[in-house]
Amino acid sequence: MKIIKLKLKERSYPIYIEEGIIAKSGSLLRRLQLGSDAAIITNQYLEKKIGQRLKGSLKKYNISSKIYTVPDSEKAKSFRHCLNLIDKISKYDNNKSLFLIALGGGVIGDLTGFVASIYKRGIAYIQIPTTLLAQIDSAIGGKTAIDLPIAKNLIGAFHQPKAVIVDPGLLKSLPKRQLKAGLAEIIKYAAIKDKPLFSFLKNNYKKIISLDKKAVELIETKCIAIKTRIVEQDEKEKKGIRTILNFGHTIGHAIESAGGYNKYNHGEAISIGMICAAQISHNLKLLREENLDKIISLVRLYGLPTRIKGIALNKIMSSLAKDKKFIHGRNRFVLPVEIGKVKVISNIPQDAIRKAILKHGSCY
Amino acid sequence: MKIIKLKLKERSYPIYIEEGIIAKSGSLLRRLQLGSDAAIITNQYLEKKIGQRLKGSLKKYNISSKIYTVPDSEKAKSFRHCLNLIDKISKYDNNKSLFLIALGGGVIGDLTGFVASIYKRGIAYIQIPTTLLAQIDSAIGGKTAIDLPIAKNLIGAFHQPKAVIVDPGLLKSLPKRQLKAGLAEIIKYAAIKDKPLFSFLKNNYKKIISLDKKAVELIETKCIAIKTRIVEQDEKEKKGIRTILNFGHTIGHAIESAGGYNKYNHGEAISIGMICAAQISHNLKLLREENLDKIISLVRLYGLPTRIKGIALNKIMSSLAKDKKFIHGRNRFVLPVEIGKVKVISNIPQDAIRKAILKHGSCY
Repeated sequence: MKIIKLKLKERSYPIYIEEGIIAKSGSLLRRLQLGSDAAIITNQYLEKKIGQRLKGSLKKYNISSKIYTVPDSEKAKSFRHCLNLIDKISKYDNNKSLFLIALGGGVIGDLTGFVASIYKRGIAYIQIPTTLLAQIDSAIGGKTAIDLPIAKNLIGAFHQPKAVIVDPGLLKSLPKRQLKAGLAEIIKYAAIKDKPLFSFLKNNYKKIISLDKKAVELIETKCIAIKTRIVEQDEKEKKGIRTILNFGHTIGHAIESAGGYNKYNHGEAISIGMICAAQISHNLKLLREENLDKIISLVRLYGLPTRIKGIALNKIMSSLAKDKKFIHGRNRFVLPVEIGKVKVISNIPQDAIRKAILKHGSCY
Repeated sequence: MKIIKLKLKERSYPIYIEEGIIAKSGSLLRRLQLGSDAAIITNQYLEKKIGQRLKGSLKKYNISSKIYTVPDSEKAKSFRHCLNLIDKISKYDNNKSLFLIALGGGVIGDLTGFVASIYKRGIAYIQIPTTLLAQIDSAIGGKTAIDLPIAKNLIGAFHQPKAVIVDPGLLKSLPKRQLKAGLAEIIKYAAIKDKPLFSFLKNNYKKIISLDKKAVELIETKCIAIKTRIVEQDEKEKKGIRTILNFGHTIGHAIESAGGYNKYNHGEAISIGMICAAQISHNLKLLREENLDKIISLVRLYGLPTRIKGIALNKIMSSLAKDKKFIHGRNRFVLPVEIGKVKVISNIPQDAIRKAILKHGSCY
């Protein structure tokens, strides 16, 4: 078992990585002494597939638990589901020493973390991420959120989990499209921080896509370590360090939003977002053409989209203007300058953004 | 102007106290560099009475602002109003450097603080408390909350303001019943931590009740200093230090809740709660009869209720069982042992609680 410790003083926590580790959850959590009772938040599919196994493992170590399911879509990140969960949990709670377990992908992790952050002014929770994207990214770092009709993740809190349990074995039953979405984030880590990882991704496509145990554990451990070190330095994204994790996300989020969140999933949208950011960087003479091509090639190698199709440019530009990461109305982009190195640049002219999007999109 | 600094590392903030200080808000806030735009949350009465003056003071120092009103009752602390505010604020925001101002009593302070804690994962806010209770208690310390139908303050966060502006002049137009509710909390501070303040309250009734400038500033400064020191030692109520502020609140909350929140206001309910806790303490031989009598006399002197009327004992006991401060289902009481000194005691027998309540209540 690999253990990466995320160090944030009294908010520090371990991230456990091992195939099949889910069966050890009870023993791991008992050691952390989080409480006698757990509310497991998951969806119906995962409840059947892993939920009962998890419950059993907890039971063995005297942790009672109850499973609560939410829909298997972004819709679960609504105020309605948040309230509904709190209502149910508070009835189960009744002065127990209760903690929450998020068993699922990014949506369930974000929702559960947010519920844990506001219920009784904050209770403990655990992340057991079941998708590649959640395992290497969203389950780590304490960002929690729900959506409002006007914008995704507009409401949220920083609330660190007490542990993250990463079982790469769970990825085997993941639909290919979701697996690829996670790979987009892995390409992001490589592009911003890890040139050797970038080469590894390029040279081991077959092993990775077929979920070779060693290869997957290696890339997951590398990505989790990168994320962990960045979160340690800039937990609340105030120092401009955590910002680099948004490479590809600025235009990516705008594409997701302009596409009504059903045209491209998160990983697909940020794939195109990374390419557009790299294009802007190249146009500004910050990134050599050769490196721009390397990024496009790697995205293409993993079967991720490299072009925007059928979304109006105006829609993308107006979504972009609403980015909550922008400060005082000035835009801010993470631009690659080499493979494994990025810079944060503000005030990119609208025209430069438009040009890059048009170059990589059949927009109308 | 008196300034008490609440020290919590990067979350430290000043508490300004002075009659008429509201007119200086613009200059005080400009210095703190919180942003170019403020959303002021208040009610319609205060909007007319102070809102425009506050807006003007901000304008002078180049802070634009917009006023948003909520109902003048506990009803404002609902999910609906919280969502509604976030929706409006996000439209006004549009990538400004926005901060919030809570202009009102405890309800507005709690709601505004909670909105500030979850909007965009936390933005800055200022407390300008307008009631005695808010000025000496709820506006200080970063506890924010909203209510659910099943329980008050079930949802919330710890989110410290960036400053608290206390203008004792605002108390002059406060209804007498609300003023007295604040005095109940002042009696609480004296009983738990400050014997000289207890004597001062006993010997200066007329000055205090007629809002003599010097007397009010003295007691407010004393209470704010007590609260500040306690919050500094135990911000998130995890070390059992902040717990002592709950003297009178355990049975008090149960009385409020059992009375449907309209029979007794918060200050009235905790007045009786303090007496019941003192009675339990006396029955357990932890508090001399003479001191029990002193507490009852002081509560009576300020025209606060000393007896529960017309609430079923069973209702109070079942509300009590739901107290979110209880740990692992065991009750926990703050019991006075002298004037100015308390102890936290767990596992008080149900019968002892019942006896104390019956002694000070005409319960059926």
